[in-house]
Amino acid sequence: MWRYIQQTMSSTIHSTDEEHQTKEMDIRSLSSSRRHPQNAPHIHKVGVPPKQNLFKEFKATVKETLFADDPLRPFKDQPGSKKFVMGMQTLFPILEWGRSYNFTKLRGDIIAGLTIASLCIPQDIGYAKLANLDPQYGLYSSFVPPLIYAFMGSSRDIAIGPVAVVSLLLGTLLQNEVDYKADAEAYRRLAFTATFFAGITQATLGFFRLGFLIDFLSHAAVVGFMGGAAITIALQQLKGLFGIQNFTKKTDIVSVLHSVFGAAHHGGKKNKKFFWVPAIAPLISVVLSTFFVFITRADKHGVQIVRHIEKGINPSSVKEIYFSGQFLLKGFRIGVVAGMIALTEAVAIGRTFASMKDYQLDGNKEMVALGTMNVVGSMTSCYVATGSFSRSAVNYMAGCQTAVSNIVMSFIVFLTLQFITPLFKYTPNAILAAIIISAVLGLIDFEAAILIWKIDKFDFIACMGAFFGVVFSSVEIGLLIAVSISFAKILLQVTRPRTAILGKLPGTTVYRNIQQYPGATKVQGVLIVRVDSAIYFSNSNYIKERILRWLMDEEEQLKSSFQPKIQFLIVEMSPVTDIDTSGIHALEELHKSLHKRDVQLILANPGPVVIDKLHASHFATTIGEDKIFLTVADAVSACSPKLVTEV
Amino acid sequence: MWRYIQQTMSSTIHSTDEEHQTKEMDIRSLSSSRRHPQNAPHIHKVGVPPKQNLFKEFKATVKETLFADDPLRPFKDQPGSKKFVMGMQTLFPILEWGRSYNFTKLRGDIIAGLTIASLCIPQDIGYAKLANLDPQYGLYSSFVPPLIYAFMGSSRDIAIGPVAVVSLLLGTLLQNEVDYKADAEAYRRLAFTATFFAGITQATLGFFRLGFLIDFLSHAAVVGFMGGAAITIALQQLKGLFGIQNFTKKTDIVSVLHSVFGAAHHGGKKNKKFFWVPAIAPLISVVLSTFFVFITRADKHGVQIVRHIEKGINPSSVKEIYFSGQFLLKGFRIGVVAGMIALTEAVAIGRTFASMKDYQLDGNKEMVALGTMNVVGSMTSCYVATGSFSRSAVNYMAGCQTAVSNIVMSFIVFLTLQFITPLFKYTPNAILAAIIISAVLGLIDFEAAILIWKIDKFDFIACMGAFFGVVFSSVEIGLLIAVSISFAKILLQVTRPRTAILGKLPGTTVYRNIQQYPGATKVQGVLIVRVDSAIYFSNSNYIKERILRWLMDEEEQLKSSFQPKIQFLIVEMSPVTDIDTSGIHALEELHKSLHKRDVQLILANPGPVVIDKLHASHFATTIGEDKIFLTVADAVSACSPKLVTEV
Repeated sequence: MWRYIQQTMSSTIHSTDEEHQTKEMDIRSLSSSRRHPQNAPHIHKVGVPPKQNLFKEFKATVKETLFADDPLRPFKDQPGSKKFVMGMQTLFPILEWGRSYNFTKLRGDIIAGLTIASLCIPQDIGYAKLANLDPQYGLYSSFVPPLIYAFMGSSRDIAIGPVAVVSLLLGTLLQNEVDYKADAEAYRRLAFTATFFAGITQATLGFFRLGFLIDFLSHAAVVGFMGGAAITIALQQLKGLFGIQNFTKKTDIVSVLHSVFGAAHHGGKKNKKFFWVPAIAPLISVVLSTFFVFITRADKHGVQIVRHIEKGINPSSVKEIYFSGQFLLKGFRIGVVAGMIALTEAVAIGRTFASMKDYQLDGNKEMVALGTMNVVGSMTSCYVATGSFSRSAVNYMAGCQTAVSNIVMSFIVFLTLQFITPLFKYTPNAILAAIIISAVLGLIDFEAAILIWKIDKFDFIACMGAFFGVVFSSVEIGLLIAVSISFAKILLQVTRPRTAILGKLPGTTVYRNIQQYPGATKVQGVLIVRVDSAIYFSNSNYIKERILRWLMDEEEQLKSSFQPKIQFLIVEMSPVTDIDTSGIHALEELHKSLHKRDVQLILANPGPVVIDKLHASHFATTIGEDKIFLTVADAVSACSPKLVTEV
Repeated sequence: MWRYIQQTMSSTIHSTDEEHQTKEMDIRSLSSSRRHPQNAPHIHKVGVPPKQNLFKEFKATVKETLFADDPLRPFKDQPGSKKFVMGMQTLFPILEWGRSYNFTKLRGDIIAGLTIASLCIPQDIGYAKLANLDPQYGLYSSFVPPLIYAFMGSSRDIAIGPVAVVSLLLGTLLQNEVDYKADAEAYRRLAFTATFFAGITQATLGFFRLGFLIDFLSHAAVVGFMGGAAITIALQQLKGLFGIQNFTKKTDIVSVLHSVFGAAHHGGKKNKKFFWVPAIAPLISVVLSTFFVFITRADKHGVQIVRHIEKGINPSSVKEIYFSGQFLLKGFRIGVVAGMIALTEAVAIGRTFASMKDYQLDGNKEMVALGTMNVVGSMTSCYVATGSFSRSAVNYMAGCQTAVSNIVMSFIVFLTLQFITPLFKYTPNAILAAIIISAVLGLIDFEAAILIWKIDKFDFIACMGAFFGVVFSSVEIGLLIAVSISFAKILLQVTRPRTAILGKLPGTTVYRNIQQYPGATKVQGVLIVRVDSAIYFSNSNYIKERILRWLMDEEEQLKSSFQPKIQFLIVEMSPVTDIDTSGIHALEELHKSLHKRDVQLILANPGPVVIDKLHASHFATTIGEDKIFLTVADAVSACSPKLVTEV
């Protein structure tokens, strides 16, 4: 049955008479091949990498998957005591950067810390309401977590505290389980339980170096989700904003104030020197409006106010966490979701600023820091804290140097809790609503959405899916849509990889996609297909059928124009980084199908892993070792003389 | 802040003095570059494909995802009546191949049909017991479904009927919901409901051309799952086999018979002429043992027999399907799982034989056929039928020509049901157990497992995971493990793509992975990295950091050997088939980081989609259009003169 055509094809084909070869080529490639006699004396064979021991191979894979950033590298060749010091420094980066801390840095950090504190106090009170918690819990969460983070975190610019989206998410998820109006205590306890497990989730992901899991939420989906959450929050707050309606005279002040710091916000964006204008505007408007309400007693005329806010720092909440009962599982589930979202936000912020200031950020270490801070937070009456977009940006613009700005902020919050909280009693809810609206509108990133539309339509669908999911349904649905679309994209990528027909660029020995380079010419009697992906079970069958379909299309065309038929099918395998058993099966089936059509299968440039597996499976012997070439050009020049004698 | 180094680099760099360039190269490459003056007169730029209209692009993606096999192709340019005929032929392929049917084919089909009928009758009775159903339901399922399939299916070799693994799976899943001993009627009704939804699932997947979803169960996982299921079934049946223990005299006969057809099975595998020996051995042993039990009345001495088997063909079961109530959802869930597994088996068989006989098989059309046959089956007292490994192999070896062999088999089963079923009353359960064991042992594919071990260790883990999951836990757990590991592999593939450092093969202008080709030499002052995957959100951050890590490793090495530092980083993008917004972000961040280190980013050979997006995002302008080259060789020769003047 087998014709063993292979034997008729000399393995020393490279030295065949060049005249034969050139007959097949058009004038330009003829001249080029005459000018480049290097086609003849090739000495390179496809390299087979030295066989690796199984354990080594496995170790390398695990290392590249989980320890891609090589965290233990500086520990190499160090004495024991030094290793301990370095270990402590790894866990508490403050020990490292603290040694080079100086007055100049302190000045920057104090200014930045004061600025973000003035921004965070009104935001915290508002965000606590989004999470259906009493206002002081927002302030608590801006006291303990930033302190912990300052010692353990490695980002220099992130500002830690409660954030709008996580507060909203937590509020929605918790409310599904317990009604905060009916049983405020159970609700609060569940909130601490969720916070505890959010922290555990974050620290665990970091400790087991599974931080890459958050990469599965695509940038586009996050943009859509954040935008949707921002709109939802803003619409919710409009209610609070119009809670002032009876108090007609004051409406103008609010709208004026709002437009003032709306404009200032933009001003600050444009001119770095005025960063403090949008940053302190909220606090100033809170102080002014609170004072105004206090002296006019507007609350008696229908203006809704904060009414009550507990004085004093965080009480312990260790005993409030549910470590048993039905709420344990519910808290766990909510905590995992909220923890992941909080992580996504913090890591995105951390990475952005790290790349702006060009320092390295260890994602996994960050997660351990964020997780620890939330676990400690859950025991000190805090709810989930993370990096805030708006405050981190202000922190950066205010010239923060290190995480000390978080300590400064934390200290200010401490003073606030200790001494001035009761004064917030008269703060009108409307002003808090305005502050929240102003903060969350910054999360709507039109420019990013437009860029996504321009670059990748599929990403845009993910973005819009998440956006409309949040706006028209709920945060969970929006999140689910975002994750699903992200996964669908990954699955599409692995099931339907691209393939391309290659042609020769005139005057070179370079073969390129003929769709991209319309000048590239096909070689007569040879079809060159490039497969642009690892060949795995998820796509092996598709790739096989796609290649056969390319061949049939080509043959149909050739038939209609009475040209000689295809005799060689060259598969360019440069992009094929790996192949599994299903892939080998597919190649075997392809080889059989081609054989029945009298077409020879030739492989060009398989990578180290692939060539190894081609040998392990004996497929290399099945098609013949001499059918595997270093480059497409080599493969073509090996086919060409054969073509001449056969046609 | 920006130094605009780009401007110092001429865009007409290709024509720079070659002497500069050669100074940088070692002797061999020097001579080679002298011999190949083609380095100089390059005229090719990186091609930007013509801008496609959005709708067209979207259409192309959908087509390639769902209609990869171009099913409507033959319909093009045909008149209306012809289109109708072709449509009917597409739905019922028998209309097409039936026209060229002849006596020679019929002879082959009759022989094959009789052979598989003799194999299927005892198997069906045994498999029905695996599904906890009365024996006649096995026979029913070998009567109606094969008939439907013969009209609608496009595989010529598959033999349709109940199969061991699906029977076991169905038995386990149904038993979890209803105890068949306590409420046989509810159990049976749930079985029909599950069968109905299995059919609906299959037909729906096929109709919406989502057949590729079953590709997510990897070959390795299927091998492990099948092996595990076979062991489980065999162990279960050993109980039935030893149910004969009181009847000591007969034990020998059974073991003799068993070893006979065990040996014959192997004989048949080795010599195609004796295919019928293993095929009819089961029926003969059933007939002999039944006769033996009947005349000795061994059932009165402790030999367990079938006892009762209904006479007559399939009664209607339309009214037995649960279309409402709590069982509807349960039946649906079980049906989806059983339907998917049945599909995997049938499609794998169909593809194997199609590739052996080299005919095309439309997976989606097959699914519609299998689905329809199960929906009709569920209404005629059948449970889930699919392609059987053992019978399809026998069918093939017996020389079947078309699906007519299924019609022949169906007819024999009809005669059996109508006339001889009562005779099976005395068939000893032990012989059925032996037949099942013999059939399922063929599902354990040691060779495949060994090959998987050799080729891909990760696949082997998936294989063993599924195997041990089924053996030590349950079919569901095994299946879950198989699917999870398959997915984990896909996710690993997309989060941790490979990258490689390239070097120049001496005497050529070819750049290859220096790990695979130890002879390849690095170019001084230039680091060439190849990224082996599309750059998506799932890996963009990893790729960026990996490239920076390559650079740092390299710089460390160079520093310790006092060599000049890296000035150019060339990213070879040939394998990068696509990039999304996250990928563009990562490139931008890479560019910034490199800029801070005084290293220039250069791209080589971006594909059509990538170059398009580089332009859409203006990243091409950011790094400078003249930093994008057709080949690595071009990029290197553009860097080299620059290096000389700077060092």
